[in-house]
Amino acid sequence: MSKEITSRAEDYSQWYNDLVIKGELADYSAVRGCMVIKPYGFALWENMQGALDRMFKDTGHVNAYFPLFVPKSLFEAEEKNAEGFAKECAVVTHYRLKADPAKKGKLIVDPEAKLEEELIIRPTSEAIIWSTYKNWIQSYRDLPLLINQWANVVRWEMRTRLFLRTAEFLWQEGHTAHATREEAIEETEKMLGVYADFAENWMAVPVIKGVKTASERFAGAEDTYCIEALMQDGKALQAGTSHFLGQNFAKAFDVKFLNKENQLEYVWATSWGASTRLIGALVMAHSDDQGLILPPKIAPVQVVIVPIYKGDQQKAAVDIKAKEIIARLKETGIRVKYDDNDNARPGWKFAEYEMKGVPVRVTLGARDLENNIAEIARRDTKEKRNVPLDGLSAYIGELLNEIQQNMFNKAKTYRDEHITPANSWNEFEKLLDEKGGFILAHWDGTAETEEAIKEKTKATIRCIPLNNQKESGQCILTGKPSDQRVLFARAY
Amino acid sequence: MSKEITSRAEDYSQWYNDLVIKGELADYSAVRGCMVIKPYGFALWENMQGALDRMFKDTGHVNAYFPLFVPKSLFEAEEKNAEGFAKECAVVTHYRLKADPAKKGKLIVDPEAKLEEELIIRPTSEAIIWSTYKNWIQSYRDLPLLINQWANVVRWEMRTRLFLRTAEFLWQEGHTAHATREEAIEETEKMLGVYADFAENWMAVPVIKGVKTASERFAGAEDTYCIEALMQDGKALQAGTSHFLGQNFAKAFDVKFLNKENQLEYVWATSWGASTRLIGALVMAHSDDQGLILPPKIAPVQVVIVPIYKGDQQKAAVDIKAKEIIARLKETGIRVKYDDNDNARPGWKFAEYEMKGVPVRVTLGARDLENNIAEIARRDTKEKRNVPLDGLSAYIGELLNEIQQNMFNKAKTYRDEHITPANSWNEFEKLLDEKGGFILAHWDGTAETEEAIKEKTKATIRCIPLNNQKESGQCILTGKPSDQRVLFARAY
Repeated sequence: MSKEITSRAEDYSQWYNDLVIKGELADYSAVRGCMVIKPYGFALWENMQGALDRMFKDTGHVNAYFPLFVPKSLFEAEEKNAEGFAKECAVVTHYRLKADPAKKGKLIVDPEAKLEEELIIRPTSEAIIWSTYKNWIQSYRDLPLLINQWANVVRWEMRTRLFLRTAEFLWQEGHTAHATREEAIEETEKMLGVYADFAENWMAVPVIKGVKTASERFAGAEDTYCIEALMQDGKALQAGTSHFLGQNFAKAFDVKFLNKENQLEYVWATSWGASTRLIGALVMAHSDDQGLILPPKIAPVQVVIVPIYKGDQQKAAVDIKAKEIIARLKETGIRVKYDDNDNARPGWKFAEYEMKGVPVRVTLGARDLENNIAEIARRDTKEKRNVPLDGLSAYIGELLNEIQQNMFNKAKTYRDEHITPANSWNEFEKLLDEKGGFILAHWDGTAETEEAIKEKTKATIRCIPLNNQKESGQCILTGKPSDQRVLFARAY
Repeated sequence: MSKEITSRAEDYSQWYNDLVIKGELADYSAVRGCMVIKPYGFALWENMQGALDRMFKDTGHVNAYFPLFVPKSLFEAEEKNAEGFAKECAVVTHYRLKADPAKKGKLIVDPEAKLEEELIIRPTSEAIIWSTYKNWIQSYRDLPLLINQWANVVRWEMRTRLFLRTAEFLWQEGHTAHATREEAIEETEKMLGVYADFAENWMAVPVIKGVKTASERFAGAEDTYCIEALMQDGKALQAGTSHFLGQNFAKAFDVKFLNKENQLEYVWATSWGASTRLIGALVMAHSDDQGLILPPKIAPVQVVIVPIYKGDQQKAAVDIKAKEIIARLKETGIRVKYDDNDNARPGWKFAEYEMKGVPVRVTLGARDLENNIAEIARRDTKEKRNVPLDGLSAYIGELLNEIQQNMFNKAKTYRDEHITPANSWNEFEKLLDEKGGFILAHWDGTAETEEAIKEKTKATIRCIPLNNQKESGQCILTGKPSDQRVLFARAY
């Protein structure tokens, strides 16, 4: 009865797709490269959004909304940014359709409704936002400006994968303006901290904070900070980025402010974003061959109660007890679902909620009622235990915390076991092919060497970890001197 | 010091724009017809979203997300819907830019990156959603499907106005699928009820529920239900619509289900939407010549506390008391702001929060502390009163409820005074020009007459009210027999 999932060992990539589709997180759509986020996946995203949004607001940010479209002349104003995104831009050229004179009931683009200036669908919003900030910032009193936007963006990708890389995706993008370089850098680092906090304490995914090399920087940034997570196949995944943009956008859009000394200065900028891609990270960091494993803090359903009974009389008795339990769980803010759908058997339901990664399953049998117990099964370890009904909600509350912590610990142990130093090129290649994970190795600091390593191995420098220890050594490829190890990995 | 607002009497339309811009709800953008929703306006929208979203979930709906793009072949599948929106579609034709060989640093659309099939930016999502539902619905067990989406949509309007009519706007669109006609109609009416509840009990805007005439129906619907509100200039504004779509989209996208009798049937559909346009309704229904007046339930800031003091010692004393008050207000869930910015004088702040429509202002003076009182000013009536600090939070909590109720009552009195029967064409024209508001008049039921009345007077039939009384009479224009009065008005 249960849906078949390809195992990780058999085909990791297919396993991932199976989980996303059969776990009902998302579906393919009729539009090339675009997905549909299904209700279960969207409820997960809403919980992630909710937590991140509170963190943004707690750090002084407010939300706003800027247009979907960027006129081409604004888009190209910051040249590096424009160059970086030009190859993946969806472009609106017309604003009307008309009846096709050749085919009844069909439509064609009306050639007379051509836009004078093409509109780019935002791949990111620095251009449209900084063209607006110009009108909002006159003096140091208008600063800092700490604004976030939840939005859809479009980047025309040739190879797409559900959540990980889609032409349209949902994200949040923070865009802040500051009076000084120091304050902007502080903001960039603070928001990296928020992302790391969210990844570790809500998603239960341990991350390494670091700075990108020049060639991996966001187009238009002076520095890109990132958090890097590790998936179960040993590949890394960038889970959030925070950019120090210097004065690049202020100069491109002529955004100046009068400082306290009454002098005009260009404004300093940051931007930072995290997207529905995080859902891909979540799936790949925790799940197993039976399905998703979702961390309790963001799981759409934290507890599912499945009744077991024969006949209406038993059903009625179980219902009464279930309602009591549900009321008590809801009082403590636990998200609970009672599945008494009699079209499906308990065994089918067990497999279904295992597939969907619900952290705790309560089996409430008519016979158990006599003994005043219920069977509690946790999704992460698959342990089952009979628990007295008295004090059940407190037990479950603690269990959810324990599962959250256990998932983080497990992922962290795996991650820590997969940070390996390499001291020779042979060792480096061998580690990549046989063990995977992060490799700490010396690099001579040049873009050429970075590119050559990528060409040879498909491994990239994920980041230079923050607070990295200085250590003399020789570049893994060229043997040239290096003063620190950097973090390599193959990545999503 | 305070910002100038044009008065309603002088220029109602300019008054509206002044409120939106100077009240910091929104701003113009660099993109034709698109606006920027500023943080204060967006916080208002978030509160509206939050309330609506809870109402949708309480009535069994879940959220999901569907693509921004609709391939042209899907867009044209439901012919009436396609025909209705064809003239206002933004169309993506290319997916790449490239360097302009003629101008260094500039970009042009890459002619080699032309899409094989053009993509329409959703003006509404029936087409993309029903092409997806086809894969999700096989049997009656899959029904009903009760899904809502919060999204941006684009309708290329020639004349735009902030919030009321913009090329891009934010909205929610519910799309439900049902096994029977009756159930779909019930859903359509239920969601109309949710909109009316929200408008009246959250926005404090009284509405009339009704059904549109055939010529005012949503393109592709069998019936369009609506709520109609009245603005202070006597013009009506449609504040939400709920459509019974029959089997039109099921037939266009071949969505059938196996019913309980094991027979294949087409699915029945509804869709319903409300947008950021509601903010325009809110502004025009309540505000005055000093600025916005926001209903407490959705106001971003419900209470602002302005300290009055001389010197640091007084400031410190006021701060301590203010913090106590704020803590107690927050305990009861009240959204409060303490404005102790010493760059602005109290008088300037008073005008500013009046402009922004904050329901309650607390003036906390150093001298008042001796008497253990504070001055409370309410925005709606502008009454001021000295209130003892003991029990202040309870007083304010009650006051917020009273303001909410008073705003509704005031708007309802105005609205009720502006529903006028007209029994002759002269009277009809005179009422429209001199009094405005809704006019109840007989109509012969033909689209020709409806159109002729619109041509002559710019008044449209806003709706045929639900539970309308039957009454014999003669059409206001043609004198032909009619069995009920319908609701006319000039409208936004």
